[in-house]
Parts: sequence; structure tokens; C-alpha cells
Amino acid sequence: MTVPFHIRAMYATDFQRGFREVLGALSSVTLSDEAAMLVFRKRLRSRVLTFVAIADDRVVGTASLLIETKFIHNGGCVGHIEDVAVLPDLQGHGVGHALVQHLIEECRKARCYKVILDCDPTIIHWYETLGFRPWCQAMRLDLELSPPAPQSQP
Amino acid sequence: MTVPFHIRAMYATDFQRGFREVLGALSSVTLSDEAAMLVFRKRLRSRVLTFVAIADDRVVGTASLLIETKFIHNGGCVGHIEDVAVLPDLQGHGVGHALVQHLIEECRKARCYKVILDCDPTIIHWYETLGFRPWCQAMRLDLELSPPAPQSQP
Repeated sequence: MTVPFHIRAMYATDFQRGFREVLGALSSVTLSDEAAMLVFRKRLRSRVLTFVAIADDRVVGTASLLIETKFIHNGGCVGHIEDVAVLPDLQGHGVGHALVQHLIEECRKARCYKVILDCDPTIIHWYETLGFRPWCQAMRLDLELSPPAPQSQP
Repeated sequence: MTVPFHIRAMYATDFQRGFREVLGALSSVTLSDEAAMLVFRKRLRSRVLTFVAIADDRVVGTASLLIETKFIHNGGCVGHIEDVAVLPDLQGHGVGHALVQHLIEECRKARCYKVILDCDPTIIHWYETLGFRPWCQAMRLDLELSPPAPQSQP
């Protein structure tokens, strides 16, 4: 079975096309409409690019891209891929693959010299089929927030 | 021996304080003054924060921070640490440690729920002393650029 879908930059109206439900495949999304819109604007201002896969006017997948201009590598850019998620019912139909390929093309257009991402060891092979190779060790520090972050912070 | 230094956000005038030479500890920096200024402005526009360690009015270390607002984690932020470099003669004097601690504090102020970075496996322990732990697998795809990227692209 193949599912007809296309990929485009996210619109604010995608919150009404099931965007949050798709991202929920990755981690719970508890933002209200108003809070989600504030996050959408913050991401646009700091040039975080969000893409969606659309099938039958519904969001079925998403992936994000941060493009960082470096002082090293002759002022070249690095693409950071984040938050690749596909609606569970449609996983295995090439949606995630097409989303990552779309992001790689965006990186080419932006003249990135490399594209990087952090993934669970169980999906290393999946990213290898897209041309990626394991390199560094990803490290993480968790920060405790107290009191809870206000959702409506501008 | 201790080296007196302080940490602050980078100024454009830091190119005249040896900024490129310090970053050269990481990878060659071949940007002209004019091209470096364009990169500096591009990074400011996309909110990439660059910090420097200053000793005797010279740059002796640098580290960068991208703060990404997520749709997941209740609209929380993630801090991405990039390009930590210390002048080779001053390595081992706590400059890198202080720079990373400064970035962690910036992440706390920005209400990040986690701070992440990719590092060479040989310095995992060094980051562990700062509270980081190994987690995901970092993956990389190299892109070929042809013709060479213009340095003066706006």
C-alpha cells in the first residue's frame, strides 16, 4: 500500500490538521491552541524550520531543521535535524524517509557542509539508508525547572 | 598557576582580540574581517549566542549556544552547545569548564529542560565532570558543495 502525501513548510493552520497528534508519536504535546501559536512564532523568529507531510489535508508527519552558520568551515552552515515524527498508523510507508530527504535538500539549498542529528541506537540503520553515518557521542544534561515554565511567555 | 579571565557575550570587536585564532584550535578559520562580520550578523539574526573568555583583553576561549523552542515538552527549550574552543596554551586552566558552566546557566535562565552537545569519545569524561551523561547516537551526513560557497553572501 502506498499513501499519497506531499511535504511543505508548516502553516499555523496545521494545528487544525492534526499537527500536535502527529508530534505526540514522539512525546506528549499538551500545548493549547494559543500556546502552540506562541511557540510557532518563537520558532519562526529564531529560524527553526518546521516541515509537514500532508495526506488528504491532514498532517501525517513532521520534521524540523535548524540551520547554523559557523565561523569555522569558511562561514559554512550546518543543518541540525530535530523531531522527526510520523503518525503511528502510517509508519513504514516512506513518510519519514521522504521528510528527512526533504530536509537534506533544504540543507543543500542553504549550502550546508554537513547535516547532523541525534537518534536512538535502534534506528541507526534507518538513518544509514539515508546516507548518515555514526560519528560523535551525544551528551545530555537535564535541568530542573522550578517553578513550572509559564505557557504564555512571549 | 591560575589565569584570571572573565566570560561575556561576544562583541564584533573580538575579531581584533584574537577570536579567530582561538577558534582555530577547533578547525581552521579562514574568514576575512568582512566575511567574519557577515557571519557574526547572520548568527545574531538567527539567535545563535556566542560567548568568549577574556584574559588581559584577549580572547582565550569561546563556546556557542543555540536555544531551540520545542512544540513538545510543553513548549520548553533545549540548549545546543557548539564549538567549545580554548587557546592551546591555556588549556587545562579551567577556561573551557567555566565557558560550559556559563552556557548551562544561560540555559537555566532561558528555562531549557535539557542541554545537549556532541563530543569526541575521548572527552566524554570531561563533560561528565560537568554533569552531562552519554545518551543518543550522533549521526552525520556530509554534503558536497559545488561551486564553492561565496564568503560574502548576505
